[in-house]
Amino acid sequence: MTESPRETPSESAPGPVPEASPGGLRTTVAAAFEDPAYLAAVVDLLGAIGYGEMSAFERLAEDAKLAPDLADKAELARMASTEFGHFEKLRDRLVELGVDPFEAMEPFRVPFDAFHARTGPADWLEGLVKAYVGDGLAADFYREIAAFVDSGTRDLIIESLADAGQSRFVVDRVRRAIAEDPRVGGRLALWGRRLMGEALAQAQRVAAERDALSALLSGGVDRPALDLAGIGRLFTRLTENHSLRMQALGLAA
Amino acid sequence: MTESPRETPSESAPGPVPEASPGGLRTTVAAAFEDPAYLAAVVDLLGAIGYGEMSAFERLAEDAKLAPDLADKAELARMASTEFGHFEKLRDRLVELGVDPFEAMEPFRVPFDAFHARTGPADWLEGLVKAYVGDGLAADFYREIAAFVDSGTRDLIIESLADAGQSRFVVDRVRRAIAEDPRVGGRLALWGRRLMGEALAQAQRVAAERDALSALLSGGVDRPALDLAGIGRLFTRLTENHSLRMQALGLAA
Repeated sequence: MTESPRETPSESAPGPVPEASPGGLRTTVAAAFEDPAYLAAVVDLLGAIGYGEMSAFERLAEDAKLAPDLADKAELARMASTEFGHFEKLRDRLVELGVDPFEAMEPFRVPFDAFHARTGPADWLEGLVKAYVGDGLAADFYREIAAFVDSGTRDLIIESLADAGQSRFVVDRVRRAIAEDPRVGGRLALWGRRLMGEALAQAQRVAAERDALSALLSGGVDRPALDLAGIGRLFTRLTENHSLRMQALGLAA
Repeated sequence: MTESPRETPSESAPGPVPEASPGGLRTTVAAAFEDPAYLAAVVDLLGAIGYGEMSAFERLAEDAKLAPDLADKAELARMASTEFGHFEKLRDRLVELGVDPFEAMEPFRVPFDAFHARTGPADWLEGLVKAYVGDGLAADFYREIAAFVDSGTRDLIIESLADAGQSRFVVDRVRRAIAEDPRVGGRLALWGRRLMGEALAQAQRVAAERDALSALLSGGVDRPALDLAGIGRLFTRLTENHSLRMQALGLAA
């Protein structure tokens, strides 16, 4: 995933969270997981990120074919392998939680596949921009939600979203291409906007279909709700970070 | 790569080999590497295996798309990531040897790509058989050649050829498919023969074009040559192992 211009969720993100016991899941199941609604929400969250990582693996492996040379191809293959490593950790945690990891991921197949079907890159540069902008947006969004879960789950999510080295590589390649032919910048700026639009469309679909995930944001007995103003601020942060990434690429947001 | 029915090169394979000093390449460059012909042969060998691993990564990632479900897809993605890990080690060793790893791999791009272009699997099962039979054949061949190189290089090669878990998974899936529909067995048996034929055609091409590699088999000052009878025995071993793999899959060789 992508190094976010803002590394952690903003301080204005609602914070208090039930902490997992240090003994880990197996010995002392965190009280939070005894709440079926909370467990369902975490399973949904890990399922969504897990399927997203598998999707990222597939997309990066596919984009590797477009690489201009073997060194760049190896760089994309490395990123793909890193994403797959994240997938494995999320899958293992789902198994620890006592659920079938593939069932947990299944509900997210359609929205993720739809996103990728609508945003198939036409060339190497579009693929790079998608890896950087798309993964960055997803990572920001998951980090925001991670503020609402126990620390064990949160740590796993943050780790899964760690930059697989995309940022520096993509920024370098895209800036170099724009320097060689400035017209490339206009085309890629449009592409970036389209990626943002398609990602938001699929995120809304998930929010509408996955009650447990949405309920997480609506709070619980010991968890504060994210009110309308909070949701507004969340979208502002996501949009700002997206703009910062576009700037880093040398593109108009 | 694939668990060979015969794990190590046959005892009849010519053995004596200049040993690398235990101190490693950097501190005490093995005497063998001072021979430019030997160095060129090892660079060719590592380049060929390295490009092969990258090819295997791409092919497995591609075949993952054909998987009937997410669990099987994850299994192929895991194999792909393992192959990429092998690629990285081979690339690092080439750098240690003072050569550009991508230049070293470049000569093998055409034959490997040609092999894959001619053997694009039509479905999930053909992809599985190709992973098992193709990688198994390549692994056997490299293990045979590894008998002619220093122990440091040999260990790296053997490690790169370690089974990424293909064997059990592929054998299980293919046997299950044949049990469900025996006609599948006939089609896959033909497919296995075609893979063998195409692999041998590309291997001959490499042997004809890469003098350094071929020279390795012809021996050197302190290395015995592989004579015509030896080459005959080598092909017999490769063919026998191929038959054993086909049998393991429940297919007529």
